[in-house]
Amino acid sequence: MSPTTREPEAASPDSGLLAPVWAGTPVAAVTDDRAWLAAMVRSEAALATAQAALGAVPPGTAPAIRAAADDLDVVSIARRSRESANPVVAFVADLTAAVARRDPAAADHVHAGCTSQDILDTAAMLVTADALALLHADLLRVAEALAGHVERHRDTLAVARTLTQHALPTTFGLKAATWLDLVRAAADRIGDASAGLPVQLGGAVGTLAGYREHLAATDGPERGARPELRLVELMAGELGLRAPALPWHTGRTPLADVAAALTFASGALGKLAADVLVLSRTEIAEVSEPAADGRGASSAMPQKRNPVLSTLIATAARQVPVFALVISQAVVAEDERPAGAWHAEWSALRDCLRLTAGAAHTAAELVAGLVVDAERMAANAAATGDALTTERVVAHLVAHLGRSRAKRLVTTALGQAPEDVRGALASALRQEGVDIDVDALFTPEDYLGAARDLVDGALSTARRHRSAP
Amino acid sequence: MSPTTREPEAASPDSGLLAPVWAGTPVAAVTDDRAWLAAMVRSEAALATAQAALGAVPPGTAPAIRAAADDLDVVSIARRSRESANPVVAFVADLTAAVARRDPAAADHVHAGCTSQDILDTAAMLVTADALALLHADLLRVAEALAGHVERHRDTLAVARTLTQHALPTTFGLKAATWLDLVRAAADRIGDASAGLPVQLGGAVGTLAGYREHLAATDGPERGARPELRLVELMAGELGLRAPALPWHTGRTPLADVAAALTFASGALGKLAADVLVLSRTEIAEVSEPAADGRGASSAMPQKRNPVLSTLIATAARQVPVFALVISQAVVAEDERPAGAWHAEWSALRDCLRLTAGAAHTAAELVAGLVVDAERMAANAAATGDALTTERVVAHLVAHLGRSRAKRLVTTALGQAPEDVRGALASALRQEGVDIDVDALFTPEDYLGAARDLVDGALSTARRHRSAP
Amino acid sequence: MSPTTREPEAASPDSGLLAPVWAGTPVAAVTDDRAWLAAMVRSEAALATAQAALGAVPPGTAPAIRAAADDLDVVSIARRSRESANPVVAFVADLTAAVARRDPAAADHVHAGCTSQDILDTAAMLVTADALALLHADLLRVAEALAGHVERHRDTLAVARTLTQHALPTTFGLKAATWLDLVRAAADRIGDASAGLPVQLGGAVGTLAGYREHLAATDGPERGARPELRLVELMAGELGLRAPALPWHTGRTPLADVAAALTFASGALGKLAADVLVLSRTEIAEVSEPAADGRGASSAMPQKRNPVLSTLIATAARQVPVFALVISQAVVAEDERPAGAWHAEWSALRDCLRLTAGAAHTAAELVAGLVVDAERMAANAAATGDALTTERVVAHLVAHLGRSRAKRLVTTALGQAPEDVRGALASALRQEGVDIDVDALFTPEDYLGAARDLVDGALSTARRHRSAP
Amino acid sequence: MSPTTREPEAASPDSGLLAPVWAGTPVAAVTDDRAWLAAMVRSEAALATAQAALGAVPPGTAPAIRAAADDLDVVSIARRSRESANPVVAFVADLTAAVARRDPAAADHVHAGCTSQDILDTAAMLVTADALALLHADLLRVAEALAGHVERHRDTLAVARTLTQHALPTTFGLKAATWLDLVRAAADRIGDASAGLPVQLGGAVGTLAGYREHLAATDGPERGARPELRLVELMAGELGLRAPALPWHTGRTPLADVAAALTFASGALGKLAADVLVLSRTEIAEVSEPAADGRGASSAMPQKRNPVLSTLIATAARQVPVFALVISQAVVAEDERPAGAWHAEWSALRDCLRLTAGAAHTAAELVAGLVVDAERMAANAAATGDALTTERVVAHLVAHLGRSRAKRLVTTALGQAPEDVRGALASALRQEGVDIDVDALFTPEDYLGAARDLVDGALSTARRHRSAP
Repeated sequence: MSPTTREPEAASPDSGLLAPVWAGTPVAAVTDDRAWLAAMVRSEAALATAQAALGAVPPGTAPAIRAAADDLDVVSIARRSRESANPVVAFVADLTAAVARRDPAAADHVHAGCTSQDILDTAAMLVTADALALLHADLLRVAEALAGHVERHRDTLAVARTLTQHALPTTFGLKAATWLDLVRAAADRIGDASAGLPVQLGGAVGTLAGYREHLAATDGPERGARPELRLVELMAGELGLRAPALPWHTGRTPLADVAAALTFASGALGKLAADVLVLSRTEIAEVSEPAADGRGASSAMPQKRNPVLSTLIATAARQVPVFALVISQAVVAEDERPAGAWHAEWSALRDCLRLTAGAAHTAAELVAGLVVDAERMAANAAATGDALTTERVVAHLVAHLGRSRAKRLVTTALGQAPEDVRGALASALRQEGVDIDVDALFTPEDYLGAARDLVDGALSTARRHRSAP
Repeated sequence: MSPTTREPEAASPDSGLLAPVWAGTPVAAVTDDRAWLAAMVRSEAALATAQAALGAVPPGTAPAIRAAADDLDVVSIARRSRESANPVVAFVADLTAAVARRDPAAADHVHAGCTSQDILDTAAMLVTADALALLHADLLRVAEALAGHVERHRDTLAVARTLTQHALPTTFGLKAATWLDLVRAAADRIGDASAGLPVQLGGAVGTLAGYREHLAATDGPERGARPELRLVELMAGELGLRAPALPWHTGRTPLADVAAALTFASGALGKLAADVLVLSRTEIAEVSEPAADGRGASSAMPQKRNPVLSTLIATAARQVPVFALVISQAVVAEDERPAGAWHAEWSALRDCLRLTAGAAHTAAELVAGLVVDAERMAANAAATGDALTTERVVAHLVAHLGRSRAKRLVTTALGQAPEDVRGALASALRQEGVDIDVDALFTPEDYLGAARDLVDGALSTARRHRSAP
Repeated sequence: MSPTTREPEAASPDSGLLAPVWAGTPVAAVTDDRAWLAAMVRSEAALATAQAALGAVPPGTAPAIRAAADDLDVVSIARRSRESANPVVAFVADLTAAVARRDPAAADHVHAGCTSQDILDTAAMLVTADALALLHADLLRVAEALAGHVERHRDTLAVARTLTQHALPTTFGLKAATWLDLVRAAADRIGDASAGLPVQLGGAVGTLAGYREHLAATDGPERGARPELRLVELMAGELGLRAPALPWHTGRTPLADVAAALTFASGALGKLAADVLVLSRTEIAEVSEPAADGRGASSAMPQKRNPVLSTLIATAARQVPVFALVISQAVVAEDERPAGAWHAEWSALRDCLRLTAGAAHTAAELVAGLVVDAERMAANAAATGDALTTERVVAHLVAHLGRSRAKRLVTTALGQAPEDVRGALASALRQEGVDIDVDALFTPEDYLGAARDLVDGALSTARRHRSAP
Repeated sequence: MSPTTREPEAASPDSGLLAPVWAGTPVAAVTDDRAWLAAMVRSEAALATAQAALGAVPPGTAPAIRAAADDLDVVSIARRSRESANPVVAFVADLTAAVARRDPAAADHVHAGCTSQDILDTAAMLVTADALALLHADLLRVAEALAGHVERHRDTLAVARTLTQHALPTTFGLKAATWLDLVRAAADRIGDASAGLPVQLGGAVGTLAGYREHLAATDGPERGARPELRLVELMAGELGLRAPALPWHTGRTPLADVAAALTFASGALGKLAADVLVLSRTEIAEVSEPAADGRGASSAMPQKRNPVLSTLIATAARQVPVFALVISQAVVAEDERPAGAWHAEWSALRDCLRLTAGAAHTAAELVAGLVVDAERMAANAAATGDALTTERVVAHLVAHLGRSRAKRLVTTALGQAPEDVRGALASALRQEGVDIDVDALFTPEDYLGAARDLVDGALSTARRHRSAP
């Protein structure tokens, strides 16, 4: 086992080569290393702005921070992050140096009273807000397109399958309504999660002591009785985040909520993808993915047209709930800052954001162009023939024969004459002396229950639903 | 490898021997096999009641179902569940036979139009409702007791630890406030999850076709225009559950929400337990678990008093988020009923309910009697001495020396004279010609930032908070 | 939310109602609470036997322990386990009392020098050994039956599917060979894992100090220079376990290995089940599960024959890798005994054993009776027609047209005349002036590559394979 | 919620900013996108070399492929991978074009008979081999350094802790021996996993049909009776991989084994890190991480020296078992190539390789310089005083008083006079008329059981152990 010899410093950045579900989608740009670094700069600048408003740092500090951002070298910071187990220490060192080159006086006020976790958690919330906004918009697009399918196929007969087997008639509208309901629920949960994202500001141990120290010397007009809490509000306002009741260094409710929402959203899209994968199987062929030049091509087989969009979505649904587990488990964070739990959250969070937003973006494309073959649906239903509605026949015979004899009679007919169930049944009923016309019971279109009402209900709910994050 | 030879039929039921966190707690009785069976009976009876109200089945059906419950043999049903991959088929067979022995006419109307998943999902919601009620009540008890600790220890000096090291002064009140905030958030999420638990009623494939068939022959006064939807409402009302917009056979939002709430609640309690475990370490000894005769005894060492309550809670926090993953992943459920995803949910759900409710019950006991040693907290803080407040000293020196020189000066003093930091610093400052009195900066009680304000805020939030599920 | 009021003490034991994959299978009896208790008794007795051989306890101790086992009340022990976070303390108390009732002198020598973890870990290994023996035997049965399918269907034409779409011809023998290869690998891993199961004997903190103390007073003939290590060997020998180099209280390699083997075995069976589920879809219908009276019946639809065996296996494959994660994560066990990690292993281990062994037992039944419909396989392949072998056609045309023109030509023919690809292609080739007879290239039976050789290789490997655990 | 507007194409590559455990370590360079792309090129070239040896493609093909590698643009390929749900289709297109620019004739023979999965799986094995080689070497370094600690501290008295409490005396040598044993076991498992990595070569559906087609026209000297199997062997030999019995497109044993080995290795290192984190707590301070300039610095507190190396390792142990779950679950891969399971493996595999190898690299640094404070260990043990050996006292009194009276007497003494247990006990024993000298029983150094023998055993095992991957 001789490893390829390449120097560690030769490592090059990743571009999403192994993650086609998000590579090249909009979420990539708002979650990459550069975006995190930019969010860290925004956090430091917003802190300085809030501190300046309370007279604790000179007003030029924030502008100097923003200007210094251009000097930062993400690769160098990433590699030096090992020294402190987080990237903020190296980041603050470089940022301060860059500020000093421009405005030496301001450099002393960078990161004043602050701690690594305040910056990284706040940056995580900013990145999360951006990614969730994209995700939410795409979920709404998916829901909109699904509502169209539901409406168009309100009466499209399809076969329902349970445990892989043809079961009873249903409509494609009702299938799509289930997808719509899930995606709508996902949009709600993502909207809720992104509405409450809090700024992090607690100082080294969550008491805000460092910030108070820097405020103590001053007596600015906006200070009020509790200047540290005012500081939290000002910084939160500056960034469009919420001011939390307590620092949440080890009260990880916000991240847990985001993880839960992403888990659900990936699953909701995953259900849609799972169904599209089944329904586009060669033998079933009831739906097909939107055609696009080169899309779904095989490297080997010219005739193949792979359902690649659903495959990508399915991939995300396999990863997100698992990766989110790292975040859920990090709620158990000992002390005022744990040694490991916090640090494990970062890349799991980014992966979940990218994968779910990538999946939603992909789903929007999938659903917008999904080709529905109503004729094939009817043909597949017809292939099962009379057997598809035998539940109904039994229900009708109960009054005449009791349930168990009724069921036995139908089962026997199914076994004896699968090709002519109704004939076999009619003759068996004559023998039993039961005089009813079973023929009418075998029309699948007449055994759709409340499918239409359910579809209408789902549509009107979806229309009432005007959730804006 | 020769297995102990015991006949399969010799298998005996489990009693929680391997799960001390819930064995013997109230949740055990509301989630055991018998409780599930009882919930299945309640579901069938409620369906029959609702159907009777609409004239679809005779009024005696529901009473006959309830009476027949006594005849059911859970062990036999469990073993025969292999034949259909779920316990409902065997259950319905036995229930119907038991009804027939009492009221032969009623037997034909048991489970009329129904499907296994309607009964098992509804039963799961009933069991979940019972378990969540216990859990919610215990979370409120925990929060109540924690609020007491927060209040009593608003000003109790303690050392804050980050990455395992003494960091800065804080208060035990603020530590407990973080626990309170998490537990309160957990109670909210459990309350929300239990408020919306829906009945399941869709029939074989979610169209309600079977129910419609049984309603069709009748023309009861309460039927209305959409009798099947009315049936769902009546059954839901009968059971205290919500009538959902759509059957959720493969729209698993309710279970996903419950899983997310349980994951969070177990984690919130786990954070509390993790801290108690650290703080009760022999060398730290700032808190100890409530003493009880025999509790925490070692089988070997007479001097040991193990923090067993926290250990139990920690155990749950290790299992629940993982087990809940099975439920999150089951959202990806293909077709109108999946072959496996649904079936995998049941025991994972029960485990999560038991473990989380057991943990909350345990936490209520832990928190009610938690012994807090304020003297030891002060002593531990004092052991780190002046080093505990050097952040503050640096902040004060920045104006005189600039940040980097200030930090260097303090670091040097720490390195040279860890036992007399302030002395070393004073002399270094004299050399630098800086004339300030550093002595006053080393009082930990004066460097608590906004701890008191934060604690008061958390308390008033907790008091305002009157969430009833 | 008013919980059903039932007293906690009213909780009744579970029988597997929610776990049909193992309820009623042989593994149930060897893993139930009673089996764990019996294994704990065996562990204590083996320790006493080994100690007696070295003269440390009276020879009557072990027999007295075995006799006392009848008095133990598993429900009582389970409920009292909360007091010490593990069931051993209550177990030892009851066992000692029961011994005392029979042989008061022996009672002082029960659990001498011992610790809870020694007993519970050893018992866990005994239970694991029994369950793995059943699992291993069933995996061999599955492999045997699969080898039969491979052999019978070495030349049975079938369509291969990739990303849900018809791809190229293959044989059913090759499909089954992939299953065989996985199941064989699973049997190997289970055999390896069960071969090395170690006894646990370390005393309170892994130094064996308590045991040494009890040995110190004696000078038995078998003692040797290192009597404690001899004690470990004797106890291991007594139980058919391995004597480990070190106590493994916090060196959890054995459990990690078992968890990994179970994870793999459940996945290997899960792949088989996933394929059977696809192949038995109504539209595909290439295989069907063995028929048995009542098996696979629906509670609603008389025509349904659900693939319940595969569904059960799929259920296990969804749970085992997840539950095993609890065990993998418990490798990170701080101190000489962790507060939580150890305790979380027990029920996860049992669940994994039950689910995997239940799945293997189910798979043995599935595979033994699997009905293979070769005609339907041929018909399904024929449905895709000439498109199934276009990869081959392109390969042949490369020499004449270059790869990209060849691929374009075939793709065009597929698009223009899906029903007569070869006709369209022949005419296109004439236009290009290429004179080859494409007709012969479209016979699927002639495009099976090395399928036969691969199948033969897999069969001969399987035959050579005589792994005994 | 207004997302930061950045164009998707503006996404920049990642450098490990959020993953300090591996950023900048050697594994980064052998697992980055460029390394994967290079491995894909190596796979194509090795295939062409093997095909050329059998006369199926011109000998210049492989060199042309290697030369063309320089033209590949990883960012472009990553983004276009969405079109086919994997990066190989775009890669082959660009590679072929680049070959065509150099050697038009060779271009027709690139990827001949091949499929995406053959290339990506083979590349994954090459990347895995490189990463495992680094990991294995670092595990051996860790073991070597640990053996030194074990040896040096064979007799260093330390307190053993169970459930966070002081339990009995042990030695630091035995603690380190447990770490050594785990790391050694991890090295074995990684060595085994990397020894058997197979090439992937099956063609579109695992029959090798495409390869056979390209071989059919030729009659090279090396062909033999089964030229396709010979092709697999030649390609495997070319790459230093194993030739598998069957293509493993959906027989994922190799990946499952790698995932299991990585899971275990991360856990073994995680146990070491968890202990170092506990032992370096301010109040315990028995070990400290190797000092290095700037290492472990806090962004806020000058006095802090954080155990950052252990924290990094702990971070990996939290992520790897979870991420590996994605791979374990992908064993359930339906059809001849699944729609999602395969695709989800790639980044999970890379993450696991990076995190585990990064953790091992970090552990090598940690262990090499770990500072062990034997005096502090003795002092901590002494703080618990006589209570530390009361297990021993009870053992001695059993013969005189019976076990339960003995235990009660000691417990009473502990309760009454925790500061003078032996005095209290001596007087109690006098009252009971028992005449033994308890004083000698309280020397912790005399109650170490077989610690020395166990340590020697572990050391000699470690020395015998010469596993080369």
